[in-house]
Amino acid sequence: MTTKKQIHIGIFPVDVGHHIAAWRHPDVPAGGGSDVAFYKDIARTAERGKLDMLFLGDQMTAHYPEDESFGRTSRMTRLEPTTLLALLSGITSHLGLVGTASMSYFEPFHLARKFASLDVLTGGRAGWNMVTSFDDMEALNFNVGMVADPSLRYRKAHEFVDVVRRLWDTWDEDAFVRDKASGRFFDPAKLHLADFKGEYFSSRGPLGIPRSAQSHPVLIQAGSSDDGRAFAAAQAEVIFTAHPVLSEARKFYSELRERVGRAGRDPDHVKILPGSMTFIGRTREEAQEKYDLLQSLIDPQTGWMVIKKHLGVDISGLPLDEPMPAFKASATGQMSRQQVLIDAAARDKLTVRQFYERFVGSKGHQLAIGTASQVADEYEAWIDGEGADGFNLMLPSLPNALNDFVDLVVPELQRRGRFRLDYTGHTLRDNLGLPLPQHAHPASAAARRPKAADAPLRSS
Amino acid sequence: MTTKKQIHIGIFPVDVGHHIAAWRHPDVPAGGGSDVAFYKDIARTAERGKLDMLFLGDQMTAHYPEDESFGRTSRMTRLEPTTLLALLSGITSHLGLVGTASMSYFEPFHLARKFASLDVLTGGRAGWNMVTSFDDMEALNFNVGMVADPSLRYRKAHEFVDVVRRLWDTWDEDAFVRDKASGRFFDPAKLHLADFKGEYFSSRGPLGIPRSAQSHPVLIQAGSSDDGRAFAAAQAEVIFTAHPVLSEARKFYSELRERVGRAGRDPDHVKILPGSMTFIGRTREEAQEKYDLLQSLIDPQTGWMVIKKHLGVDISGLPLDEPMPAFKASATGQMSRQQVLIDAAARDKLTVRQFYERFVGSKGHQLAIGTASQVADEYEAWIDGEGADGFNLMLPSLPNALNDFVDLVVPELQRRGRFRLDYTGHTLRDNLGLPLPQHAHPASAAARRPKAADAPLRSS
Repeated sequence: MTTKKQIHIGIFPVDVGHHIAAWRHPDVPAGGGSDVAFYKDIARTAERGKLDMLFLGDQMTAHYPEDESFGRTSRMTRLEPTTLLALLSGITSHLGLVGTASMSYFEPFHLARKFASLDVLTGGRAGWNMVTSFDDMEALNFNVGMVADPSLRYRKAHEFVDVVRRLWDTWDEDAFVRDKASGRFFDPAKLHLADFKGEYFSSRGPLGIPRSAQSHPVLIQAGSSDDGRAFAAAQAEVIFTAHPVLSEARKFYSELRERVGRAGRDPDHVKILPGSMTFIGRTREEAQEKYDLLQSLIDPQTGWMVIKKHLGVDISGLPLDEPMPAFKASATGQMSRQQVLIDAAARDKLTVRQFYERFVGSKGHQLAIGTASQVADEYEAWIDGEGADGFNLMLPSLPNALNDFVDLVVPELQRRGRFRLDYTGHTLRDNLGLPLPQHAHPASAAARRPKAADAPLRSS
Repeated sequence: MTTKKQIHIGIFPVDVGHHIAAWRHPDVPAGGGSDVAFYKDIARTAERGKLDMLFLGDQMTAHYPEDESFGRTSRMTRLEPTTLLALLSGITSHLGLVGTASMSYFEPFHLARKFASLDVLTGGRAGWNMVTSFDDMEALNFNVGMVADPSLRYRKAHEFVDVVRRLWDTWDEDAFVRDKASGRFFDPAKLHLADFKGEYFSSRGPLGIPRSAQSHPVLIQAGSSDDGRAFAAAQAEVIFTAHPVLSEARKFYSELRERVGRAGRDPDHVKILPGSMTFIGRTREEAQEKYDLLQSLIDPQTGWMVIKKHLGVDISGLPLDEPMPAFKASATGQMSRQQVLIDAAARDKLTVRQFYERFVGSKGHQLAIGTASQVADEYEAWIDGEGADGFNLMLPSLPNALNDFVDLVVPELQRRGRFRLDYTGHTLRDNLGLPLPQHAHPASAAARRPKAADAPLRSS
């Protein structure tokens, strides 16, 4: 066995691809975003490629502009992610299944129960991407009607996850005896109430769901603000992030691992996966053609819409082939990154069309256009350069770009000894090389240890 | 084709069976209640038997007594039902999938989204059993900490369902154009915000989920209080109920249909399904033996526990083979029915053991012990006697009692021209012979009508 560091790979489908014009691609089923056959195909291909996991985001509203671009986006529909993941678990056997759910509109008992159910039913393949909501359009769908400020959201989030963990620790690993002869089903000493009364939440328990094959779902986090990083360092086992270049990724990677250590945890027990958008071809030119084709499908109204949504500026109606005028970003969010993009437009003398095409094309994630060998080079550089433990694939269009990845990049990474030839375990923790979580009641952990057959097989 | 009234049949698994001692039966997998293979087997058998639907209850807590019977029940675990249904949808193609979800601890947007997702992903096979929660043990798992009084619960429930319906009417049937050439994905005129601000709930929308193959999930109700009946008459398309004998069932059936008519709806558009517990044998004696075997597995502690929970009286420690002493029921709930049971015990001079065995054995639902032919006779009597449109199977133990039903009773009903030989449609509405629901925006209904291929095929 090689000692090369292994690469972890997730697939993160959004609608029919992360590229805004994906639905117009000739090889893409335009209505895939609400079609079960489309998602089954993605999940089967991901498992054929031995990927670690399939990750679904969430958004409890549909964003749309009230202007002439309205009606031109395919991003108006999104199925509830855990429902879809449960369905996909029935047709897969090893692929991890990670869903996003907001701590802002559910109570801890809901999410503890939902993800524990998914984890038991999938044989320990579930993960929860823990998010707080900052979107007023979402809030308007609920009685609360408005979002809380960020620091309150994260204070609540810490407590929320504490309650969820306590509920997940309801049953010891060996609580269920199920002895038909004596009529004893479980050992009452191995049932623990959560009995939680905190500042924001209270929940008594018990949670009526046994521990899963991986004890409980993997905890995942994706925010990168200072509050978000502190939360990730304390709670997360996987972190999704966004970096266009290795130098940025390295900074984040070392800073996060240091924070994890300061929180009293082993940094190797947290896997950091930046997003990666790939256009793969058998030659560099073929890859570039794939990129160019999708870019050419962005119509001006859609370009204007994306710029307005992400940068807060209105470029509608500007002559498409004239240079972009200078302006200041005014959207909320990552202001400094937005201004960098705007300044680059001026420096590179981009036309209006070139500007929106470039912005829509990358969106601040790693963008890899090339052959399988070139992409593998890039991935190895990030892994060995301490910028990442793997990647979360934000593929431009589906299913075609996933087929390219699985048929071309995966075998290349396998040849280089960087990626599993087959699954070596059964749970998401096995795929990621993560340890079983501590149980709040030590006797339970002891019950787990002697059972050699249950020991996780590590993929790295 | 016969003109005999068709029988609709659902299967309602709870843990490994409705009989409290089911888990101790030699043919039952004791841990089935949290085992995905167990549920897959149930779903496949139900579909092999051409049943209308699989129905899952819900309970957001685990009830248990703090006494010597603690540890002797298998009913301490229950998976989140919609997660399980989504999984089962992946291995079935025609079986309806109905889940229970409480309006007390979710907001309308949550449930609208969850069930619309399930409905789209299953190709229109979803149903929602709309319940309000009256269980303090559940409430303690949430911040609210206590339950609301019944009439407030139902006032809120009416508004809740109104919001859900408005969200389900977000998109017209033909809203999605998906024209790659022009870049037009949907028609903005065919998107409708809910814009609901009521007394208890508000939700703006849109809901990001298209209409399903059956437009929206079937609405189901199971409460039988006066408030519950009024709610059912106004909102439900299927009603689950409990009657031990036909005379009671007839009263409920005619009263409910009259209420539906008074609410301005067609009584034939509401299907009434009492619960039915069957013990089937090739002879009457074999059926009786199956009943006796399960009854013999009820240990005294469990008998005491069930009596205490349902009737509120403590009979623990009483000599098992002495006559039951007289007493008054003191539990909350259906007091009059409980007193009938207690009075019958005195009249029939039951011993303590006979009393708890009889109570645990029937629990107030139709109990059919006999051959397939005898059960079919009983079912025909209820159907033709205007006591039911079908039955919801509350089988004593699983999977064995479901195998008996599908292998013996279903063919008998088919021979009699009372039950489908195969599925004739694809949606739950097709199975039940229910019409497509009205869309709040009439243009949408018009869009649906001309598409002959989409017209529901009725099974009756």
